[in-house]
Amino acid sequence: MHFISETSSDGIVERLFTLGDITGVLWSPESGSDGAPLILSGHTGGIHKKSPGLVANAHHLVTGYGYTVAAIDAPGHGDRPRDERDQRWVAEMMAARAAGESMARIITDYNMSLAERAVPEWQATIDALQALPEIGPEAPIGYGGVTLGVAIGLVLTAVEPRIKAATFGPVFVYEALAEAARKITVPVDFTLAWDDEEIARRPGLDLFDACASAEKTLHIHPGRHNRMVGLDPDTGARFFARHLG
Amino acid sequence: MHFISETSSDGIVERLFTLGDITGVLWSPESGSDGAPLILSGHTGGIHKKSPGLVANAHHLVTGYGYTVAAIDAPGHGDRPRDERDQRWVAEMMAARAAGESMARIITDYNMSLAERAVPEWQATIDALQALPEIGPEAPIGYGGVTLGVAIGLVLTAVEPRIKAATFGPVFVYEALAEAARKITVPVDFTLAWDDEEIARRPGLDLFDACASAEKTLHIHPGRHNRMVGLDPDTGARFFARHLG
Repeated sequence: MHFISETSSDGIVERLFTLGDITGVLWSPESGSDGAPLILSGHTGGIHKKSPGLVANAHHLVTGYGYTVAAIDAPGHGDRPRDERDQRWVAEMMAARAAGESMARIITDYNMSLAERAVPEWQATIDALQALPEIGPEAPIGYGGVTLGVAIGLVLTAVEPRIKAATFGPVFVYEALAEAARKITVPVDFTLAWDDEEIARRPGLDLFDACASAEKTLHIHPGRHNRMVGLDPDTGARFFARHLG
Repeated sequence: MHFISETSSDGIVERLFTLGDITGVLWSPESGSDGAPLILSGHTGGIHKKSPGLVANAHHLVTGYGYTVAAIDAPGHGDRPRDERDQRWVAEMMAARAAGESMARIITDYNMSLAERAVPEWQATIDALQALPEIGPEAPIGYGGVTLGVAIGLVLTAVEPRIKAATFGPVFVYEALAEAARKITVPVDFTLAWDDEEIARRPGLDLFDACASAEKTLHIHPGRHNRMVGLDPDTGARFFARHLG
């Protein structure tokens, strides 16, 4: 893990890093973070590790809760080159959107491929983060994501015992995600958008149902997945505080 | 409204009152409550205004948020005599339970009758509470209830413009409740138990759906309605804080 920049403001240290092909960012409290929980933040498809929503959420977790937050670009996102196959998927999505057609099938295929590639990248990132003295192997780890970040996070949480709690927003559900959910037993906190033209209600309810965790909650909000009404910005943070300390 | 007792401990003043046939209790911060929100607390069927869960919740709202909380006994509950008709319903419920049969139909009929009687009682109670100098007509009013308290609260909130926000737990849904929900436009916060033998999932989802509020949230938790897993004790309080100030 190579840190390529470090800036500091409002009590938050932001460090950009690379780890092989992976590009990432680590936010931590200026006052130190020894033993504090580490939250892995999975971005939505089409955006990147430092999109405004992720940054705002990370800042809230760092300044309000003293947590460390890490985000990495998904393959072909942010600072990472997009390979030919991914370029085709993106072109197909744009064509479908221009034609007013559903992008659900394309997004599903694309997310599935990205999740397969992103899971080992997150695992390598966790290894590298745990090797940092200010994090170490004992810091409790949580994962939070929306859409693509959910697809990645479900598969990651199913196979990665170091993740002790996870928050998942709306996602296009496909069988591999339901299969991952059935393997998850740590506390999870789902959020579902109730009025989305593309991401239907029923698969979201079934995904929650499939999850094997004894402690799981589903919050349903009106609106589309990217414009949910009445979200409490502290729901996720308080969930992590209850389960990661 | 006649106050019949006043006790004080841990920063909370508890006053029992009567209002005609109604028996109630008012909890307020010892330090004063001028202009603080007033929360009306609706108890579950079979228990009463001072059951442990209601008391704990009221104490949390008073000491953690500075709110005033009022609860009244439903007709035939707590300190109020049970008339012959209600005695029949209770006997029917106990017989159904002893026979291992569903109590859903009996509870539905009983709740519907209790809600019709309790709504004007709550309205008279609000009148009387607003006449107290320490509450007054300007204190924002919220309502929170579980099961019977939901049946009463939905009908009350639909007809009572003084209620500005409401939290509703699990409830046996019947058509009059869906009809009430369709008239509710203030922010509402629903909680649904996902694994209840008696209170099914679908009617709870439909009730949330029916509610006309632009700002509404549904929290789904595993477990039975009286043993939900992973409840955050602050979800309701924080919801009121966002909407009542």
